[in-house]
Amino acid sequence: MSLLVVGSVAFDAVETPFGKVDRMLGGAASYFALAASHFATVRVVAIVGEDFSNKERAIFKGRKIDLSGVEQVAGKSFFWAGRYSQNMNERTTLATELNVFADFRPRLPASYGDSPYIFLGNIDPTLQRSVLTQVRRKPAMVGLDTMNYWIERTPAELRETLKQTQILMINDDETRQLTGEHNLLRAAKRVFAMGPQTLIIKRGEHGAMLVHDKFMFSIPAFPLEEVRDPTGAGDSFAGGFMGYLASIRRINEQTLRTAMVYGSVLGSFAVERFGVERLCGLRRREITARAKLFSKLTSFKL
Amino acid sequence: MSLLVVGSVAFDAVETPFGKVDRMLGGAASYFALAASHFATVRVVAIVGEDFSNKERAIFKGRKIDLSGVEQVAGKSFFWAGRYSQNMNERTTLATELNVFADFRPRLPASYGDSPYIFLGNIDPTLQRSVLTQVRRKPAMVGLDTMNYWIERTPAELRETLKQTQILMINDDETRQLTGEHNLLRAAKRVFAMGPQTLIIKRGEHGAMLVHDKFMFSIPAFPLEEVRDPTGAGDSFAGGFMGYLASIRRINEQTLRTAMVYGSVLGSFAVERFGVERLCGLRRREITARAKLFSKLTSFKL
Repeated sequence: MSLLVVGSVAFDAVETPFGKVDRMLGGAASYFALAASHFATVRVVAIVGEDFSNKERAIFKGRKIDLSGVEQVAGKSFFWAGRYSQNMNERTTLATELNVFADFRPRLPASYGDSPYIFLGNIDPTLQRSVLTQVRRKPAMVGLDTMNYWIERTPAELRETLKQTQILMINDDETRQLTGEHNLLRAAKRVFAMGPQTLIIKRGEHGAMLVHDKFMFSIPAFPLEEVRDPTGAGDSFAGGFMGYLASIRRINEQTLRTAMVYGSVLGSFAVERFGVERLCGLRRREITARAKLFSKLTSFKL
Repeated sequence: MSLLVVGSVAFDAVETPFGKVDRMLGGAASYFALAASHFATVRVVAIVGEDFSNKERAIFKGRKIDLSGVEQVAGKSFFWAGRYSQNMNERTTLATELNVFADFRPRLPASYGDSPYIFLGNIDPTLQRSVLTQVRRKPAMVGLDTMNYWIERTPAELRETLKQTQILMINDDETRQLTGEHNLLRAAKRVFAMGPQTLIIKRGEHGAMLVHDKFMFSIPAFPLEEVRDPTGAGDSFAGGFMGYLASIRRINEQTLRTAMVYGSVLGSFAVERFGVERLCGLRRREITARAKLFSKLTSFKL
């Protein structure tokens, strides 16, 4: 089934101990779409400038990715530059140039109106909600990402959008900030009171945890010998997670658990190369093989 | 089978956001023994002062814990005082009074000489090694804990002891410091070159990872709504891990995986109450029940 994502399609400059790239395709929606397209057809809603060329379009081409909701306007695309510390555990933002993204007003093509699975990437909560008003049918599932900026600046708007969200997918700091509660289980209960039935806490190198009203699931990160560029890991996780659910068409405890594994698998691949490179070259059989390795990594008998 | 542990038996003063205790039984060997005694008979090698009274002996009594290797001498027992931050993620040491522990020279009673499972708690590596010279038979397995102090101050002595160690059980910072390698998988290879075939990385609230020459196992921490006192979590983990292995008498991939689960279970219980309180009141059926919850927490189907 189709999966709609709204978010940034951007250019990134990234420096890590493994190298430096001055300009490459980035943005949450790019990582999400490339990860999710291994499972389901992804409809992208985003805005780009004149610098978004055939070279970037080619990256999405030949995949189950629909760019008809990507609006191209005069000006430059969103640009982000960042540098990772020697140990990759700290990131310094060197530049954030919103450019055409500053005036982004998501507009869904008519063909997107029936999207059953929707992922609201990390943008202004009011714009996230505007996507939901444009779909014709009540979606089967709405997932949402957000960040400290929106939690601090637009708390009332975020609360309003959360009421229409089933799955909130954020990191531990954001969970604590949003709920004012340090303990993640108690924080989850507060999130449930805001609307979502499911909280997914992304913990980077420490894995991910899903807390649902009725059950919990926790998974370590897949251990890698080389992490070249952590950018986009969380967005790739979200893409793998939502993509798997959209492909399986059933949301229950078992499919949510499996979706967490595919999310972790996609996140682990994303960081192996710079930018979206690894996600682009990825084969379905590699995904399946790594999911099996995840089983081995975590399985035990009592 | 019998499990020997050498380490500290001490008094602790602990302050956490949940309360304050001025003086209670503590020390790595205490936590280890109480955790492991749910699985196997534990032989303790330690030193205490005159202040170690019948009240403290009573805590160990009626359990599978042999204190005949606990030497009592004139003076005061090791005393440690610490305070945890509001979020429990930082710990400030307020006092470390070595007292009789400063002159600790482990002496094994003759009855300990055939101990097949040995855990060398975090003490001077030379003293750790002196325990191994006192056992009459080559042990089935030697586990070892250490810390930044010994890694920095006595690196050559530590290397010598590691040569006689099968399982090294430390945290991620110590792993990185010992090996000079940030990536934990590459760090594990360096550890293997030092002697141990197995590295267990304790990650506190983020769980634990086992890296063996031939396989990996990773487990999240058991999510708790209330952590009252994190002191002794790692030692209780080690006790549960080694205790289970000593009880099962077979060391292979499957038993090592299961031991990691029991280690995590014991660690999770330890932090629910102050000091050793929860470990003392713990029943075997509670351990079994939580191990089953761990299965639910981590299980998925592809």
